[in-house]
Amino acid sequence: MFEIMPILDSNKNTPLYVQLYEYIKQEIQKGTIKPEMKLPSKRKLANYLGISQNTIQTAYEQLCAEGYVESKPRKGLFVTNIDDDLLHYPIHETKLNIDKDKKRDPEYIIDFNSGKVDLDYFPYSIWRKITIKSLFSDQSSILSLGEAQGEKCLREEISKYLFQSRGVRCSAEQIVIGSGTQFLLILLCMLIGKECSYAIENPGFHRARYIFKDQGIDVQPISVDEDGICIDELRKSSAKVVYVTPSHQFPNGMVMPISRRIDLLKWCEEKAGYIIEDDYDSEFRYKGKPIPSLQGLGNSENVIYMGTFSKSLIPSIRISYVVLPSTLINKYQEYYKVYKQTVSRLHQDTLYRFMEEGHWSRHLNKMRTVYRKKHKILLSSINKYMGEKVDIIGENAGLHILLKVKNGMSEEELIKTAFDIKIKVYPTSIYYDKYEDAEYPSIILGFGGLNEIQIEEGINMLKNAWLI
Amino acid sequence: MFEIMPILDSNKNTPLYVQLYEYIKQEIQKGTIKPEMKLPSKRKLANYLGISQNTIQTAYEQLCAEGYVESKPRKGLFVTNIDDDLLHYPIHETKLNIDKDKKRDPEYIIDFNSGKVDLDYFPYSIWRKITIKSLFSDQSSILSLGEAQGEKCLREEISKYLFQSRGVRCSAEQIVIGSGTQFLLILLCMLIGKECSYAIENPGFHRARYIFKDQGIDVQPISVDEDGICIDELRKSSAKVVYVTPSHQFPNGMVMPISRRIDLLKWCEEKAGYIIEDDYDSEFRYKGKPIPSLQGLGNSENVIYMGTFSKSLIPSIRISYVVLPSTLINKYQEYYKVYKQTVSRLHQDTLYRFMEEGHWSRHLNKMRTVYRKKHKILLSSINKYMGEKVDIIGENAGLHILLKVKNGMSEEELIKTAFDIKIKVYPTSIYYDKYEDAEYPSIILGFGGLNEIQIEEGINMLKNAWLI
Repeated sequence: MFEIMPILDSNKNTPLYVQLYEYIKQEIQKGTIKPEMKLPSKRKLANYLGISQNTIQTAYEQLCAEGYVESKPRKGLFVTNIDDDLLHYPIHETKLNIDKDKKRDPEYIIDFNSGKVDLDYFPYSIWRKITIKSLFSDQSSILSLGEAQGEKCLREEISKYLFQSRGVRCSAEQIVIGSGTQFLLILLCMLIGKECSYAIENPGFHRARYIFKDQGIDVQPISVDEDGICIDELRKSSAKVVYVTPSHQFPNGMVMPISRRIDLLKWCEEKAGYIIEDDYDSEFRYKGKPIPSLQGLGNSENVIYMGTFSKSLIPSIRISYVVLPSTLINKYQEYYKVYKQTVSRLHQDTLYRFMEEGHWSRHLNKMRTVYRKKHKILLSSINKYMGEKVDIIGENAGLHILLKVKNGMSEEELIKTAFDIKIKVYPTSIYYDKYEDAEYPSIILGFGGLNEIQIEEGINMLKNAWLI
Repeated sequence: MFEIMPILDSNKNTPLYVQLYEYIKQEIQKGTIKPEMKLPSKRKLANYLGISQNTIQTAYEQLCAEGYVESKPRKGLFVTNIDDDLLHYPIHETKLNIDKDKKRDPEYIIDFNSGKVDLDYFPYSIWRKITIKSLFSDQSSILSLGEAQGEKCLREEISKYLFQSRGVRCSAEQIVIGSGTQFLLILLCMLIGKECSYAIENPGFHRARYIFKDQGIDVQPISVDEDGICIDELRKSSAKVVYVTPSHQFPNGMVMPISRRIDLLKWCEEKAGYIIEDDYDSEFRYKGKPIPSLQGLGNSENVIYMGTFSKSLIPSIRISYVVLPSTLINKYQEYYKVYKQTVSRLHQDTLYRFMEEGHWSRHLNKMRTVYRKKHKILLSSINKYMGEKVDIIGENAGLHILLKVKNGMSEEELIKTAFDIKIKVYPTSIYYDKYEDAEYPSIILGFGGLNEIQIEEGINMLKNAWLI
């Protein structure tokens, strides 16, 4: 008698060979079909079950492929001797301690998030039209994997823009595109090397600090004064690399003046190190023209320039870039091209066309006006409602300001009392390496994502929460 | 007399205030306007130049912002005392040693690249239509930054697919989406920790090896036999983490049988370590059904499962994913969400709709047939033209095979002689940690991107190069 007596049902959706394979596999797992047992020949089993030999063949091959049975030449197929304990391997249920009932963010009426940008003025119909144009262009250049460094045409547009608007001197060959500043910073750590110490601004961009630390780098926080990072303190540190935001210090918002810039470049030359210049939102300056980049000022062999379209265009397409000096781009070309491009080729093509057709500079001009208006409303509302009881810090540029609130509340209390009236404001303590309570704490207020009415209303409500 | 005598031209495109600002800045840099000099008052200079005080004000503010001049209260504006040497900082031209004349890849007639997929059968019109649908959907959900982990709707579709087709047991909460396997492997290194050693298959996927080494991890290459990674050797190593390709070993192409899988799971349980299962192209198997995942077999608390849409759909949208066990997803939730999502939100939305409407499974079915045909042509051509003089390795699955060529040539000679007749074939030595010359070298032949005529023609030409 056969020990294999499956009940096969040709009316089922599952093919017969799968039914047979599943049956034999389960019987082996249960131990009903014993190790070393010889399977019936295809011909015999086919006759017995009244199905074709092909079906048996396919099921047997699958069992062989997965290792449940073995073929012995000229003898036939035998059940593999699999360790019993192992076969009945306990199957645990995955336990997620994600608290399903955890408090969700309440519905804020007004959210002063500094990462938000104004999406209402994004030229969505133009972007859509150009995306569709990209979609209908040469299929193979949109579907297959592009250059590791990013599409040449987009890099050329970026280099033109950087020269004209930011004074950055670079060629398309020096630009590497990546899906966000974070990924590019990881790539930079690899290119620069992780043995030396990196200095960061304190307070400064917290994500950069996390990335350097996560990459195993010794991070040295350096104080910031009213001109930016303190060069004396930097000199005393053992750092050879420094990450700075000279055009609009994050979060304090000041511009690094020319003499400090020159001191910084001098430090870098002495150390034969690198300055990482993160120019994250310098497109938006409300007095005069944007401050030219540090990269364009000195020996650009020491300066690595970074920029992003997240603030100035939209964050969801995930396009940032880095301009590498020649030593690093050569190192990149030799080895790091092994890291494939992380940005969608379609979006790169669309952004290239968007820039090339002039929409990018038009959009920037429009957004400068939009943000300038919002910024003005923010400052005038603060003056109107809060007056002397607050100080405004970093009010000349960007999409956020700091508000030093002099009512005796701690940072936590300021956030909590705002939260109670459904206004979300954000701490600045997270931007410090080690935060020490200040006499008066500062709150970061982003305004990019709010309209003018919300801004005024928000400040008025905060006055009620904080200053009455 | 004024020391400031700019020639301003109101017919120029450059605004007057920019002309004035540029003039003063250059004179300061040249040393014509000396440090500590007092600038003329706005009123006087405006009268002298016959332009408005506002223009002067704007130019002065820019010079202040950049630090070329300083305001002294109740005294006026003075030129900053900037270190002369520093100001005339030598500006080097960036030297790129990218050899512009470097030999470009010649035009190959036939390229057996194993990374290429068939784009002709990609349902481009459907993808286009759905992309346009995504583009016309709720604007704010496409333009603003999405969840760090990836869009929930897409993660749900992926978890359903993985359960049905790959036997992976997971919820959407366990999935993290990222722009390519490389970025996700970097994230994994951070999540698992970099202190312990990681074992890799030898030969194995070279990019994984590079990433682990670039992340500063001690990498231990473990031999591969006909069943996959050798457990005895793994046990002797100090590794706690192992990166494997059990459904289709890269590059050798074998399937890890059930007993080896169970041994591997047992090793992992003993070590309290992790198995990283990279299931990069297991959708395509030419005999029977796809091999179920290792993750679904054992205690999924020890197995990290990775997959990608680069092979099975298109590489240019850059979508991969990783399924984390509960310990790691909890760790991710606590800290690593600080790393923002790297994939475009538009593409995530489009892929979700593509899967949800059933196009994904239809596409997979179609591609199985397409690749099965190509695969059959490849094997029959090799048999027909090359016969006994070659061995085929790993012929049951995936988009490549290995060809062991027994004509006495080295790997380098095989590639060179193919190159001479404009056929591109690829080495397997790069997949070894340390390559030692084999008696007969193996060449990797990818066929995904070639049509049936090219495949047969290519093999015929290779016969002429190698076996005559």
